[in-house]
Amino acid sequence: MNSDASQPATLSYEQAGVNYDLIDPLKIAAQRAAAATAVHLGAHGFSEIQASRGESAYVVDVGPFYLASIVECLGSKSLVADEMQQLTGKSYYAGIAQDTIAMAINDLITVGATPLVVQAYWAAGGSDWFGDAQRAQALVAGWKQACDDCGVAWGGGETPALAGIVEAGRIDLAASCTGLVNPKERLSVGDKLAAGDAIVLLASSGIHANGLSLARKLVERLPQGYLTRLEDGSTYGEALLAPTLLYSPVTEALYQAGIIPHYCSNITGHGWRKLLRHPAQLTYRIHTLPPVPPVLRFIQQQARQDDREAYSTLNMGAGFALFVPAADAQRTVQVAQSLGVAATLAGSLEAGPKQLLVEPLGIRFSDEDLQLR
Amino acid sequence: MNSDASQPATLSYEQAGVNYDLIDPLKIAAQRAAAATAVHLGAHGFSEIQASRGESAYVVDVGPFYLASIVECLGSKSLVADEMQQLTGKSYYAGIAQDTIAMAINDLITVGATPLVVQAYWAAGGSDWFGDAQRAQALVAGWKQACDDCGVAWGGGETPALAGIVEAGRIDLAASCTGLVNPKERLSVGDKLAAGDAIVLLASSGIHANGLSLARKLVERLPQGYLTRLEDGSTYGEALLAPTLLYSPVTEALYQAGIIPHYCSNITGHGWRKLLRHPAQLTYRIHTLPPVPPVLRFIQQQARQDDREAYSTLNMGAGFALFVPAADAQRTVQVAQSLGVAATLAGSLEAGPKQLLVEPLGIRFSDEDLQLR
Repeated sequence: MNSDASQPATLSYEQAGVNYDLIDPLKIAAQRAAAATAVHLGAHGFSEIQASRGESAYVVDVGPFYLASIVECLGSKSLVADEMQQLTGKSYYAGIAQDTIAMAINDLITVGATPLVVQAYWAAGGSDWFGDAQRAQALVAGWKQACDDCGVAWGGGETPALAGIVEAGRIDLAASCTGLVNPKERLSVGDKLAAGDAIVLLASSGIHANGLSLARKLVERLPQGYLTRLEDGSTYGEALLAPTLLYSPVTEALYQAGIIPHYCSNITGHGWRKLLRHPAQLTYRIHTLPPVPPVLRFIQQQARQDDREAYSTLNMGAGFALFVPAADAQRTVQVAQSLGVAATLAGSLEAGPKQLLVEPLGIRFSDEDLQLR
Repeated sequence: MNSDASQPATLSYEQAGVNYDLIDPLKIAAQRAAAATAVHLGAHGFSEIQASRGESAYVVDVGPFYLASIVECLGSKSLVADEMQQLTGKSYYAGIAQDTIAMAINDLITVGATPLVVQAYWAAGGSDWFGDAQRAQALVAGWKQACDDCGVAWGGGETPALAGIVEAGRIDLAASCTGLVNPKERLSVGDKLAAGDAIVLLASSGIHANGLSLARKLVERLPQGYLTRLEDGSTYGEALLAPTLLYSPVTEALYQAGIIPHYCSNITGHGWRKLLRHPAQLTYRIHTLPPVPPVLRFIQQQARQDDREAYSTLNMGAGFALFVPAADAQRTVQVAQSLGVAATLAGSLEAGPKQLLVEPLGIRFSDEDLQLR
């Protein structure tokens, strides 16, 4: 669009290398095939929670409680850790471990599940990846710490060396997580979502583990690269590597406080469009914005994104959305903040067409902006 | 050892590129850290089955039944599918999908669990991987068929495009699986394993998904490569790509027939040494060998492996071992065969030092040959 080198063009997520048009037909075929397998649960006397199809975790009714499970991928954040290790000599893999677990746990809890067991999937480009003892120990220590923080058992996992599939010197990280919705009343797949509900946004620590393709692409535009200083004095690379916050301590504490969200949305890819995740026809009106982490403001500026593009790509300070009865809104904020997680009573739901109105910025997202399910 | 080009040297698994000495320190550190997280289950009123630590699946007591979970990787078998697609124009990804699911399900069932939900982890080297519609549809169709064959629900999954981590044109495939041991009496973590138990070996279809690094390395020695004809007329590539058998229909049918194995071992890496997986001090005496699939005999010959090396690396016709009460042995064979899975009453356990005696071949494996746990 703009070929003036002194004014680099806007950089969208698609330009950063992820082409959803190629992936989506496969996803749709896979979703259809997957849905057709639910019938098998009947042979065991169980059944799926159909509303969990298309949600962040899959839920099965096994009688006394619901069983929830998921597998999630870190994505490309480890490439930033690798670059920063070259530049600083430090290993950032303790934080990367937390990111990976957060990707799984923050999805699993959206349905109201208590995470119980995490399994590690660490697929390296070769056996030698594990030979860097400092990095390997950081990965182990960070993984354990994140399990401790979330009160989950680390069940085991896989550490394959996949030369020829995973690039030499790299690692493909993922986590699977299994949990229970117990008691069953905790199920939060959105059937109770209604006009009047409050929207509470839990703060993010930064970019978390989504939007990294864009963030890495931007480095090419920065003379100091990952060592570019942000306004708060941190380097771009360090700021990107702030670990994703783990939100299960908040959802567990909410239940202890007697608060059961009607719905939750983990804000990952597609930024604030994820607030529109649930299929219900409702208008989501935002009146108060959470503070934007400096690294996200920096990315927005460097990528020449307007607010609409930025909020549709990045979390912009909101890592997780809780949709709670209005009467519980203030207490939800307090419970989160008592655990050190900043929270914003950001808006509410009302009757109306399916849309998200971010009033302070004059932005509207409609259903067409989010074809995820 | 042997530099005469007309007599290529023996090719061991380590020479084929996997160096366990680099991976093992990490695995040990990870296992210790993981074990220390089990305490968290107590806060939810649950507890781990400690005997499942080091087993193929992790088991938690959640009250009315046991919860089992796992994540497993395909490994490098997809590289053979990619080469064969180049040579023949066909896609082999339906079989590859079955292989991936088999890696997870055949491990999960070892503890006595009924698999309920599978999650797909398909991490491609770029969005374009999914643009090959024939291949993508084969992956979806094969994944669904394997779920149907095992009676599990396909819950969902992840299809990330990981350029820079996964090699261009390649895909890193894994599956997570969650199941229940229900009723609890089905738990088979080996506490009842005893002298007198029979060893029933379920047939493999070929190499399954272990030993592929070696199998791929051998191609360099074959003038016709993957198109080399085996004695049964199939090509080496096609024979390697025979999908891993799914054994959960057998374990489910055994339970229906009133047979509860004392222990099970999924024979994957380390070949028959996996029969020694359980820590009990017992002697495993094999008197009858299952037939060796032609592709495994071919690999053994081409790699100039003696029987000891071959049986310590490859499954040599035994894909899954069931350790059952002697009185149930014949019926176990019959149940498997009624489902089309060949089975061999291969031997029995007796009091004595921990060792595996493969009498027809005069081979002995001791505990030192298997330091897996």
